[in-house]
Amino acid sequence: METEFRFQSIGIMESCFPENFGIPRQPGLVPESRGRICLFSPYDQADAIRGLEGFSHLWVVFVFHRLKGKTAKTTVRPPRLGGNTRLGVFASRATHRPNPIGLSLVKLEKIDISSGRNVLEVSGLDVLNGTPVLDIKPYLPYAESIPDAIAGYANEAPEYTYEVIFSEQADRAAALLEARYPQFSNLLRRVLSLDPRPAFHQQSDERQAGRIYGLSLYDQNIRWQLGANRLIIVLDINPLKASV
Amino acid sequence: METEFRFQSIGIMESCFPENFGIPRQPGLVPESRGRICLFSPYDQADAIRGLEGFSHLWVVFVFHRLKGKTAKTTVRPPRLGGNTRLGVFASRATHRPNPIGLSLVKLEKIDISSGRNVLEVSGLDVLNGTPVLDIKPYLPYAESIPDAIAGYANEAPEYTYEVIFSEQADRAAALLEARYPQFSNLLRRVLSLDPRPAFHQQSDERQAGRIYGLSLYDQNIRWQLGANRLIIVLDINPLKASV
Repeated sequence: METEFRFQSIGIMESCFPENFGIPRQPGLVPESRGRICLFSPYDQADAIRGLEGFSHLWVVFVFHRLKGKTAKTTVRPPRLGGNTRLGVFASRATHRPNPIGLSLVKLEKIDISSGRNVLEVSGLDVLNGTPVLDIKPYLPYAESIPDAIAGYANEAPEYTYEVIFSEQADRAAALLEARYPQFSNLLRRVLSLDPRPAFHQQSDERQAGRIYGLSLYDQNIRWQLGANRLIIVLDINPLKASV
Repeated sequence: METEFRFQSIGIMESCFPENFGIPRQPGLVPESRGRICLFSPYDQADAIRGLEGFSHLWVVFVFHRLKGKTAKTTVRPPRLGGNTRLGVFASRATHRPNPIGLSLVKLEKIDISSGRNVLEVSGLDVLNGTPVLDIKPYLPYAESIPDAIAGYANEAPEYTYEVIFSEQADRAAALLEARYPQFSNLLRRVLSLDPRPAFHQQSDERQAGRIYGLSLYDQNIRWQLGANRLIIVLDINPLKASV
C-alpha cells in the first residue's frame, strides 16, 4: 500500500497578509481581505478555467508553506478555547498538522486574463502571501452547505469584539492607500476588531493595556495599541521598508 | 520557490464502493453509503481526535489513488452537461485533476476506539474503498455553509430520477445482507436511482433499454437492467467471489 504522495503546485496565491500575525482564523471573516491566485503553466491557459466564471465561491487547497521543518504534534491548543485546552489536531483547523494542507473557501470576485495568464481575484482570504496552491475546486452549495451542522467548540463565528479608532496620521495614510488597496481602512479595522493577538495575551487584557503591537498588511507596517475597554488605537501606518 | 510537496497518508478509508462504477458524484447524495476512516500510528491514539466527537460533519482530504499513471488534462467533460461540453478542470470536481486530491464532506456517525485504534464511522461517502487519507478537518458551518452561493452548471443537486424495483432473488438476498450491512437495500436503491451510467449511455436511454449492467457494493455483485420509462430492475445479488 502506497503511503507517500507527491504533488506539484499549480499556482501561487498573493494575499494582503505578508506575515502570519493578523491573518483571520477562518476564511470569510474579513471580506475585505483580497488576493489573487496566479496559475502556472500549463494551467495559465483560458481552457483550464473555462466555466469557472459561473461559480461564486471556490475551494482553494493549499500548502502551509511557512511551517517547514517543524514537527506537527497530535494535539493542539485552539485559540478559541483560550489556548489552554488541548484537543486532537484533527478536531481543529490549526495550520500545524501532520500534512500541512490548508483548505479555504474564498469568493471569486473576478477572472483576469488580460495579462495572457489566468489570474483569479478572490476575497475573504485567510492565507499568507506567496502560498503554494495545489488545487482549485468549485464550491457546491447543495452538497457543502449544511447550516445546521454542529461544530463543537467552534459552533459560532468569532466576534468582532474590539472597537478600532485611528490616529490622525493613520487616518490620512489609510485614505491615501485606498487608491492602491481599495478598502484598506475597512480591512485594517476588521482584522484588528477580531483581535489577532495570541490567546495568552487575550487572557490578560488588563495587564496588556498600553502595549504596542505591529501588524503588516500588503507592504505597510501598522503600529497599534491596546486601550482599555476593548478599544484598539491605530497609531501609525508606514511603508514596511521605511520601518526596517 | 518550492513547487513540489510530499505528504504521507495518515489513514485509510474503507467504503462500501469497491470500484468506481456506482460511486455517487458528490458526498451526501447517498446518506446510506457508510464507511470507516482508520487512522495510522501515531494518529491512532485517542489524543489525536480528542474533541472530534463535538462535530457532526468532517472534511476528508484524500488521494484519488486509482488514477495513478494517467495524465490529467486541463479540460474535462462533466457528466452533468451530458458529457459533450468541455470545461476547465478547475471548474469541475472531476477526479482526474492535476493534483489528484479529493475533498469530501462526510457525516461523523460514531467514533470507535474499542479496538485500541481510532476508527471514525462516517456516512454520505463518495469515495472508493481503500482510499488514502491525507487530512481530517472539522466542518465549520459559520464559515463554510453558504446556502446562496452560485454554482454555475452544478447549482442544483442531481435528481433521483429512476424508479428501482427488485426481483424476488434480489429482494431475498438484500434482506439477508441487512444483518451485515444495515440499509443495504436503501443504499442500492439510492445509488441506482442516481443512474451511475456514463453520460453517453444516459443520452440514449431508448437504445440502451434491456441492457444489463453490473455494480459492486461491499463484497456483493449486483446485476441490474434498464427498463423503459426510467425504470431499473435489480436482477440478482451474489457474493463477488462467486461471480468471478
